[in-house]
Formats: sequence, C-alpha cells, structure tokens
Amino acid sequence: MTYYEKLVKHSKKINRLSHLGAICGWDQAAMMPEGGNDARSEAMAELAVMSHELSTASHLADWFNQAEAESLTAEETISLKEMKRVWQMSNILPAELVEEQSLAGSKCEHAWRTQRQTNNWHDFSKNLETVVELARKEAAIRAEATGLSRYDALLDIYEPGMTTAELDSLFADVKSWLPSLIQQVREKQNTEAVLTPKGPFFIDDQKSLSLEVMSKLGFDFDHGRLDVSTHPFCGGVPSDVRITTRYDEDDFTSALMGVIHETGHARYEQGLPQQLAGLPVGQARSMGIHESQSLFFEMQLSRSPEFIALLAPSAREAFERENDKALTNENLALFNTRVKPGYIRVDADEVTYPAHVILRYEIERDLIEGNIEVVDIPRLWDKKMNEYLGLSTKGNYTDGCMQDIHWTDGSFGYFPSYTLGAMYAAQFMSAMRTEMNIENLIRERNLTPIFNWLDRHVWKKASTLSTDQILINATGERLNAQYFRTHLIDRYLK
Amino acid sequence: MTYYEKLVKHSKKINRLSHLGAICGWDQAAMMPEGGNDARSEAMAELAVMSHELSTASHLADWFNQAEAESLTAEETISLKEMKRVWQMSNILPAELVEEQSLAGSKCEHAWRTQRQTNNWHDFSKNLETVVELARKEAAIRAEATGLSRYDALLDIYEPGMTTAELDSLFADVKSWLPSLIQQVREKQNTEAVLTPKGPFFIDDQKSLSLEVMSKLGFDFDHGRLDVSTHPFCGGVPSDVRITTRYDEDDFTSALMGVIHETGHARYEQGLPQQLAGLPVGQARSMGIHESQSLFFEMQLSRSPEFIALLAPSAREAFERENDKALTNENLALFNTRVKPGYIRVDADEVTYPAHVILRYEIERDLIEGNIEVVDIPRLWDKKMNEYLGLSTKGNYTDGCMQDIHWTDGSFGYFPSYTLGAMYAAQFMSAMRTEMNIENLIRERNLTPIFNWLDRHVWKKASTLSTDQILINATGERLNAQYFRTHLIDRYLK
Ligand SMILES: [Zn+2]
Ligand SMILES: [Zn+2]
Repeated sequence: MTYYEKLVKHSKKINRLSHLGAICGWDQAAMMPEGGNDARSEAMAELAVMSHELSTASHLADWFNQAEAESLTAEETISLKEMKRVWQMSNILPAELVEEQSLAGSKCEHAWRTQRQTNNWHDFSKNLETVVELARKEAAIRAEATGLSRYDALLDIYEPGMTTAELDSLFADVKSWLPSLIQQVREKQNTEAVLTPKGPFFIDDQKSLSLEVMSKLGFDFDHGRLDVSTHPFCGGVPSDVRITTRYDEDDFTSALMGVIHETGHARYEQGLPQQLAGLPVGQARSMGIHESQSLFFEMQLSRSPEFIALLAPSAREAFERENDKALTNENLALFNTRVKPGYIRVDADEVTYPAHVILRYEIERDLIEGNIEVVDIPRLWDKKMNEYLGLSTKGNYTDGCMQDIHWTDGSFGYFPSYTLGAMYAAQFMSAMRTEMNIENLIRERNLTPIFNWLDRHVWKKASTLSTDQILINATGERLNAQYFRTHLIDRYLK
Repeated sequence: MTYYEKLVKHSKKINRLSHLGAICGWDQAAMMPEGGNDARSEAMAELAVMSHELSTASHLADWFNQAEAESLTAEETISLKEMKRVWQMSNILPAELVEEQSLAGSKCEHAWRTQRQTNNWHDFSKNLETVVELARKEAAIRAEATGLSRYDALLDIYEPGMTTAELDSLFADVKSWLPSLIQQVREKQNTEAVLTPKGPFFIDDQKSLSLEVMSKLGFDFDHGRLDVSTHPFCGGVPSDVRITTRYDEDDFTSALMGVIHETGHARYEQGLPQQLAGLPVGQARSMGIHESQSLFFEMQLSRSPEFIALLAPSAREAFERENDKALTNENLALFNTRVKPGYIRVDADEVTYPAHVILRYEIERDLIEGNIEVVDIPRLWDKKMNEYLGLSTKGNYTDGCMQDIHWTDGSFGYFPSYTLGAMYAAQFMSAMRTEMNIENLIRERNLTPIFNWLDRHVWKKASTLSTDQILINATGERLNAQYFRTHLIDRYLK
C-alpha cells in the first residue's frame, strides 16, 4: 500500500466517525428527548476525542512526506493537498488551548441563553472577554503557522483563501450603495399594498407543502429526510442529508422559505461526487459556497415572481384557501420580498442582510486584531446600526450585540460567509442567465437545466478547486459585488 | 488512579461508543432512507472495529491482574468480576474466526431473504452448513476456554449460567404436560364465540392509543421514544430508550401488544441503576431476564382480563367505536387469549410458544454438539412439529425450518431465552402475588406497586447478581417451570 493510499484509508476512517457524529448530532437536535442529553453529550465528546486522536496521530507527518514523494495522478495530487490542508488545520492548535476554548465557549454560551433574555451585558461581557482573549491566542498561533494576518487566519477556517483585504474592498463597495438602495426600496414599497397571510396554517399541511416543494426542487428522499428542530439546519451525511425546519401556525412562509434554503444546502451535499466520498477533496468547498447554494435556492430562485407563481397554487391547495386574497401569486410575491430594516439578523430580508454582516465583520475583525476591546462593542454596534440601517440599539443588548450565538463560543470569522454566499449566488445566477432563460424555465416547470448547471459548476467540483477557481470557471471572473447589486436593483427597484 | 479506576474509565469509553452505535442502529432501522445504507454500514463496521480494539487492548490483562490485587469494596469486586467476564467474552475468539463468521453470516442471511420466499432449502442448506461449521468452531474454542460443553458455551453468551442439563430437565417437564394442555385449551375455546375486530384502524389512532398505554405502563418519555420499523425492537440506551412497532390497519391488537411487550423491555432499561451506568455490572442481566420483563408486561399483565378491561375503553375511544361488539372488554379478553397451534413462532400465542422454542433448542443443541447435521433438520422439524403441535411441515421449508433469522447468522443458543423469559415472568408474578392483590391493583388503576416490585427485584439489580440469585432473592427459589404451568392453567383452563 502506498503512503497516499494509507492516507486515503485514514481519511475515510475519520470520515466514518464523523458520519456517526453527524447522525447522532441530528438525533440530538431533532429526535432525542431532553433526558437523553447528558449521556449523549458524553458519547459525542468521546467521539470528538477519538477523532482528534486520529487526526493528530504522530505518524501522519511522515506519511505526508512520503506520499508527496510518490508519483501521483493530477487528481491524487489535488486530493493529497486537501488532505494535508485539513490535517494541518487540526494540528495547528495545542490541545490545552482547544480544551480551554471549549470550556470558556460552553460557559459563555450557556450563560448567554439567560443573559440575553435579561439584557445583561455586564455579566455577559466578562465571559466574552475570556472567549475573545482565547480567540486572539488562537488567531496568533494560526497566523504564525500560516503567514496570514490574525483575523485572516480565522477567516481561513470557514472561507479558505478569503482575506481582510478583499472583504474590506467588497464591503466598502457594498457600503457605498446599500444604504441609499435600502432607502429607495423602502420608498417604492411604501406605495404597495400587501396583505399578511393570516393563520392558523396547520402544521400537517405545512409539512405536506414543504415535502412537495422539496420534491420540486429535486431533493432526493432516498438520500435524506425532513424533520423538525428548534433551530433549523442541514445535517447528516451526503448519502443521507437531514434537513430540519420549525413550523409556525401563524406564518407558513417562514418554514417554507427555511425549507427551501436548507434544500439548497442539501442538494449541494447530495450532489457531491460519490467517487470522492469520505475524502477531504470530496467535501463542500467552504461555508460561503455552501451558503451560496442555499441562498441561490431561497433568494435567487424561490423569491422570484415566477417561482412564487409555482409555489402559490400549491400553498392555496395545501391550506384549502382557493380564495384567500393574501395567497394570490401577486400578493405572495410582494409579501416574500418585503424590505424593512430591523434589529435582528436572522429575520432580515436579503436587502438589509449585508448591513448586519458588515457591521459584525468590522467589529470582529478589529476585536481579533486588537484594535478594539469587548467594552467597545455596544457603542460601535449602535453607531453602525444607525449608519447602515438607521436604527439605534443604545441600551438594547438583547436585540443588539447579544443577539447571535456565534461569538459566544468563539466562532470569529464566520459571519462574512453569509454575505459572500449571497454574492456568489448572484454571480452564479448572472452567469447562468447567459446560457438559459431562467424565467421561461421556471414557467415551464423545467428546473433541471438550472440544477444541472449548479451540479456541474459547483456540486461536482467539491473541494477539487479553490473558491476563486470555482468562481472563475463558472462565471469567468473572481467574486464581483456588482452582480449582487444588479440583482437587488432588478428585483426591488424595477 | 487505581487499576480498578482505569478499568472503569475504559469500560465507560467502550460504552460511549456503543451509545453511538445504538442510536445509529436505531436510526438505520427507524429513520434512515434506503440510499443511506451503504455509508451507514461502513460507519457502523468502523465503530465495531474500534470498539473491538478497545475491548481487546493488550494491556487489559495486566490491568485486571493489578486490579484484582487492589483492595476493593464489595460492590467494586462485583463490578470488576463483571467487567472481567465481558472482557473475557470478547477476547476468546480469534479475529479471523470472527471475520469469517461475519462474512458467512451476512451471506447466508442475505440469500435467505429470497430463498425463504421460494422455499429453496437446497441452496439455503449449503450456506447454513458453512455457518454451522463455523459455529461449531466457535463453540469448541469457547468450551475449551470456559470448561463448559460446546452448546453450553454458546448458551452462556445469551444466558450466563444456564446449562443444557438444566434446560433438558425444564423442557422435559414442559413436554410432559404441554401437548395435552394445548389440547384441553383448544377444546375449551372451541365452545367460545369470539369476534375478530374489523379494520380499518387508522394508524394515527393506533399511535395515540400506543402512547397512552405506554404512559399507563410508566414509560418515561423524557428518556425514550416510540417510532416505527419493519421489525419491532427495543434499542437506544438506558437514558434514551427507543422502542419501535409496526402498525397494521386491519388489526390494532398486534401493534398494541407489541408496544406493550417493548415497553416491558424499555422499563427494564430505564430502570437500570444510574450510578452503575456505562459499566458491565450496570447492564441488563441476560436475554432471558430481559424477555421476562417484556413478557411480564405483555403476557402476565396485559392479557389478563382485568388489564384488558383497562385497555378496551381506551381502544373504543381511540377508534371512536363505542358500540363495536368486537371491542367490548369481554370480547377483547377472549380475542387476546386465543390459542391455536400454527407454523410460525413469532405469531404464536403464549401456550403454544414453548413448543416452538423447545423444538429449536433440541435441534440446535444436537447440531452444535455434532449429533446431527444440517441435512437432518427438515425431517426433525417435521417430526417434532407433529409431536408437539400436531402440524406437518413436510416440504414446507418457508414456514418450517427456514422461518427464523437466528440461525442464518449463527446465533445458536439464543432461542431458549424466549421460554426462559416466559417462565421467569410467571415465577416473578407468583412471588408478587404473595405480597399484593394484582387484580385489585389493576382494577384500581394503581400499577405502581407492581412496577416497584420489578424495579426493586430485577431492574435495580442489573448485573450485580447472577440470574439464579435474582430468582432466589425475588422468589425464594431457582427457576421452576411449575409456575408457568400454573399460570397457563389458571388463565386458560379456569
Ligand atoms: Zn444556510
Ligand atoms: Zn422481546
């Protein structure tokens, strides 16, 4: 057996352990009764330890050296490179730091769940200071090992290859036009009369509708399921993708749009190349590319008037409301594209969403680089919310800087993925339009060419290409925020 | 850390891996779409390998020696003994034999699924010969290591301490009265008019009824769930017990009685002592004791006229059939205690069931001891079916010696557990009756004293006592088949 083959075998072994973790993690969120939690958490922690031991086995350095000297095909060379990247990622940090971070993160997150409700910034900020301090240590170690800047070294975990320099430039562009664009959209929408659909929308009916829409979107039920959890997610494994949603009897569109979003994530996973299954090179490319697929499904595709014209009749039938004026094609199209600046990121529409992300990016970048401290966050949050969205969060930590879970457990560098995803999605759609008439295809209920395009250019590429190269191959250029801007103008101002 | 403590830690680690396997195994049967099976099977196999590596780690022999020399409490001594028993069990067989058996078993079982349908004994028997040959090797190795006879060494896997000598004597007793008892019951029941409940019984209603009955039986839904699978089972872990059933729209009693049966298994698991969780000494004692709990719930408790009088009103309400004559207390009591010799073990009533088990026991015992060969099975099967139940299976392999899965993968020694369980259950009930009036308690809907008795005498004992000692402590004597006989006479001939 060559060293390359040994590494392949070893990677697949690690992957099989993550398979068990993914299913048990899904179960924990979607199936497990509360009383099962302690034993489950212990079992999951044990799995993490065993998986970490495999990932950091001392003989691997030698195996990589030996494998790099072997004569490999072009595909094998790329696969080896990706295996090595993942291996280096999991070997950079000293075990003690990982443990310290895990403890501090759990403590901060756990306390946050009640502190957020009581607007208790004072106590929360103490815990957050520890988390930030450890994240700075992590960033320093990663920067040292990779030659990147500190924040870039964290970005690299979620969006390999992305840099502060590029984000600064992309987001400066967005900031130059977004506030006035929001203003114009608001003025235009103020003249439109929109009906809010009135519940109850029975959960069984919502579920049937969700399953029907998933089928339309090509979700493969032989390799996946839809269930319910408090926080919707896309989990499981590529051969068996588990997506979840949360139904609200008063508003069917939130679960429906959520299901469509997760279906985008799911089709990416289901579409990954089978011959690379279990290998790092066969995994999804990055968080940003992942989000580009969910946002392609949710925003580019499903909130278009043409797609709403497909959805609306199914909704009217599912809820037996043939004559509900709030459920006409036209009203649902308006309702699903309403724009309104708000405090909460997860409730934001696609126009205001980037403002929430840029604000967080700028704060976390400066925090990690040491230019600001935790104590500065509320003031900056309020200032930027005013600047980007015209809202004040002074004294309102609950709906301000304490609203997200990400920082509580030290996931700095993650937020940009959301807006990168929205931009990638717009750029993919724009390129796709040069090859096909999207609106006609939707009207003809023929979505296959659209999915085939994504499959060919994104899903089947997995991690064989860098994010940059995926963009260039698929669209002819690197990430360009203008496509996103054009998409917003076309949808919201025409 | 003492060596005893090291062993405790090691055992808990192995237990955490089985936790993941139990949940993923449940998922595979109850949740997973078909297309997820290949990757899941690979992940489960990987887990089995890692678990086996932990169980057979070479330093453990030394740890056990060292621990046995340490000064331990009485409880620790018992725990250590049980840890050692489990360790020895997993170290007896050479890895090559285990692998050969696994391959031969998978092949035989897989082919059996179609061979059974086509009554193809000829081809099946070829595969079975290999499985038997390997089982004989296993039995010889186990006999050598334990000093037991070959078949006893296999019995010991499922029912530690049970012997051929004892089974021969117990079953000789049963055979001396069972055929004529069946005859008498049949004659008595021939004079009774019984209505068969007519479907459809909607699955949602059956599910509600199942959940209601599980609640009545004290199932803890904070530590478990009810779901659906093709072959009902009780899985999961003690802190989160997963039972399954299979609903038949034409017959609600099969799922209902199945759910009650699995609830008995589940309460045993949920009732295991928490302070011993994750240790061999904290596990269920044996397959026979496990089955005694499910059969206590299903047979001793739930098929009694008093309990049916509790169930029937719930059934009438669940199916909205207040006036269905087939659903009166009296008719359901008769319907749920019908006795009829049949070909299929899993469909058998509690009176004829032991005949199916004794037949299989006698054949597998002689097979393993080398007194008969695979080719002799059909003839012996037909002969014994005639003798015990008055039915011929000549030429009918499908409903004869090819009906069960157990032998296909080499699980020889398992069958006796079913009837041992029925006998243990009858003996437990008889002892319980000396302390309380069971019928009155059921009529008063006060089942707690019954469950408390089982909890105290069986569940909380886990594996701290031998099966014999559990019986003696709880009932004052070793297993005695007369209690089972008396139970059958009381229920079916009075
Ligand atoms: Zn997403
Ligand atoms: Zn059972």
